[in-house]
Order: sequence, then structure tokens, then C-alpha cells
Amino acid sequence: MDYVVENIYLLVIVTLISVLQNAFFAQKVEKEGKAHNTHASAFERVSCANRNCMDAYPTFLAVMWCAGLCLRQAPAAFAGIVYLVVRQKYFVGYMGQTSQSTPGFLFGKRVLFFLLLMCIVGIFNYLLTRYFGSDYKEYVETITNAASALLLIP
Amino acid sequence: MDYVVENIYLLVIVTLISVLQNAFFAQKVEKEGKAHNTHASAFERVSCANRNCMDAYPTFLAVMWCAGLCLRQAPAAFAGIVYLVVRQKYFVGYMGQTSQSTPGFLFGKRVLFFLLLMCIVGIFNYLLTRYFGSDYKEYVETITNAASALLLIP
Amino acid sequence: MDYVVENIYLLVIVTLISVLQNAFFAQKVEKEGKAHNTHASAFERVSCANRNCMDAYPTFLAVMWCAGLCLRQAPAAFAGIVYLVVRQKYFVGYMGQTSQSTPGFLFGKRVLFFLLLMCIVGIFNYLLTRYFGSDYKEYVETITNAASALLLIP
Repeated sequence: MDYVVENIYLLVIVTLISVLQNAFFAQKVEKEGKAHNTHASAFERVSCANRNCMDAYPTFLAVMWCAGLCLRQAPAAFAGIVYLVVRQKYFVGYMGQTSQSTPGFLFGKRVLFFLLLMCIVGIFNYLLTRYFGSDYKEYVETITNAASALLLIP
Repeated sequence: MDYVVENIYLLVIVTLISVLQNAFFAQKVEKEGKAHNTHASAFERVSCANRNCMDAYPTFLAVMWCAGLCLRQAPAAFAGIVYLVVRQKYFVGYMGQTSQSTPGFLFGKRVLFFLLLMCIVGIFNYLLTRYFGSDYKEYVETITNAASALLLIP
Repeated sequence: MDYVVENIYLLVIVTLISVLQNAFFAQKVEKEGKAHNTHASAFERVSCANRNCMDAYPTFLAVMWCAGLCLRQAPAAFAGIVYLVVRQKYFVGYMGQTSQSTPGFLFGKRVLFFLLLMCIVGIFNYLLTRYFGSDYKEYVETITNAASALLLIP
């Protein structure tokens, strides 16, 4: 697997920076949109929920794949499943809403943050192995597996 | 190629589930948006067509790459080309529309379904090979190549 | 690395065609949207800037990864960084705008074009190596590294 990481680690780093930038953009939208929600028709609500989900989709895919390729696929896939469950609840909640207030623009922040952390740890681990020769991957993977269970806590 | 599949098959499975979820979301939008289309300006139409295409774009990329990596690239690339042709027709048709009714929200369902099926077959084939040792990949690839020709039938 | 390219080059070619199609769609929107901008609230502006960035995001990711996998990761990652800087300036500029005219729909065209060119060169190089046996990769990589510095010129 290290052979793979060697050939993509710069790309992964840029992808991570772009993900952070996406988060910055999304937070701006979230902040501005606070007092914005008015009475919306069913179509507008479902369309808005779909657009919010689709806006975050490439970010999610990028982070999950990078985490899976750089560190280990099992916890990344597990976090992906958790994210999908969160997204489902978000979408259904958005549709069912009939009052003025709709759920915010962002969702699944914790899962995405966990995946982002996995990427960073994987990259750091690779760089450490390359330049210092010491390999913490074993320990890191054990910790990651344990940490991914924490995602289940609501 | 099996070495590659071994390292990503869990990620591919989660990606497939997320694609199915996207399809569920899109169908909700499609259903709600039926009687919604009103007179729209040229800018609104082209912007809407672009947004619909862009919404489906990450899904398409994910399914095509998973299908190509898990099973075989030639039929996946061919299905990708067919999808691009369908998309082009959809976009041009959307722009040219001057009456009230615009084409639906979804397009290229058959091609995406075919690519999804390719992924599932590839994953199943990998799991069968791993746990039972029998390899149906040869047969599966022959069938896939033949089936991809069926996509040309309108 | 050639082993990798062998298994994905058809997928990369389809991805490139889809990127060109995306550019075609985006240009249509750009053309129609010229005289469209009206007084917009802060939320509408930030939401619009975010959507424009997100629309282009999968295209950017696809091109950067293809360029990095097919040719070389260092210039691709550098061009990616340049793109992120351009995007940041675009987003901030969009938000700060209080007059009627907002920046256009498209941005970072030059960087994406450079990455696209890298992909095409990488694919051509692979096909040349495969069918003619001559390998220009060394020369191509030197030129690419030099050319990526040109992106810094505004």
C-alpha cells in the first residue's frame, strides 16, 4: 500500500486543502442563511435538501477515498456508512419540516472531520516512515479502529 | 488487478450505497417537480439544465471509475461515452424547449444502472474468488462486453 | 506507474471528454447569464458563489487526479494549489461585491486547461510508449515542470 501512497500523497494533500476550503465556503453560506428560511413549497424544500446533499457529495467521496487509500479501508468505509445514515436522516428531516425553520446547511460535520483526520494521520505516517524510517502505522490503525466506534455516539 | 480490488472493495461498496441514496433523493425531487415547470427565461433554463447535469456528475464519475476498476475498463468507458451522448442530448433539448414542459430532472438512468450493475458484479466476483476460489471473471467479462452493446438500443 | 495507467487510460479519456462537455455547458451558462445580475442580498451572493465553486469542484478533482496519475504528481499538485488560490480570490471577490455586476460564472480556466493538457500529454505518451516503444516521458516531465511555473504569471 505504501507504493500507492507514494504516488498520490501530494494529490491527497491538495485534496485535503480543497476540502478545508469547501468547509470554509459552506460555513459562510451557513452563517448568512440563518434568518433566511421562509415558507417554502414541498418542491422547494426537497429540491433544496437535494442540492445541499449534492453540494457536499464530492467532498465526502474525496475524503473517504483518501482516508481509505492512505490509512486503512475498514474504518473509512464504516465512517462512510455513518455519514450516509446521517445524510438520510437530514434529507428526511428536511422534507418533513412544515414550520418555518429548516435544518441548517451543513450536516455530518463530525464524520467528515474524522475522515479528514484519518487522511492527515495517514499522510503524516507516510512522511514519517519515508524520512525517519520509524513506522507507527500499526499503532495508528489500532487507534483509528477504536476511534471509529466513537462515531456511533450521537 | 485483484490486488487493487482487495484494497478498495469496502470503499466501492459504500460508494455504491451512496449512489443508490443519490438516486433515491433524485427521485423525490423528480416526483415533487412534476407539475412545477412554469415559463422560464433562457438563462433560467440553461442554468437549470447545467445544474441538473452537474448534480449527477459526481455520481456518474464514481460509478464509472468503480465499474472500470472492479471489472474491466473497456465496457465501463463505452457506457461512459453513451452517458455523455445522452447528457448532451438532454442539455440541448432543455435549452431548445420553449413550451411549458421541460424534460425531467433525471436522465441517463439506464446507463448509470448498467454501470452500477457492473460494480456489483465485480465486487461479488471478487468476494467469490476470495472465499470460494472459483473465478467466474472470464465469463462475466464476456457477458459484460456483450451487454454493453445493448445500451445502444434506444 | 505505467501499470496503473494501463488499467485506467480508457476511463481517463472518457473523463477528459466529460470535462470538455462540462466546459461547454458552463460556457453556455456564462453566455446567457451576462446581463442577468440584479441587486442580490448577501445570502444570495454567498450562496451563488458557493454553488459556482461547488459546480466546478468535481471537474477540478477529476482533472487534477487524472493529470497526477497519468503524468506526474508534483506539477499537478502545484497547479491544484494555484487553482485553490484563484478560487479563494473568486469567492471573496463575489462576497465583497456590492455593485450590480458580479464576477462571471467561470474561474480558473487557465489552470484547468493546463491540467487537461497534462492529462492529454500523459495519455498520448502512454499510447506512444505502448505502440511505438519510444518513451518521451523524461522530456515531457521536464517541460511540464517548467510550464507549471508559467501559471504564476497573472
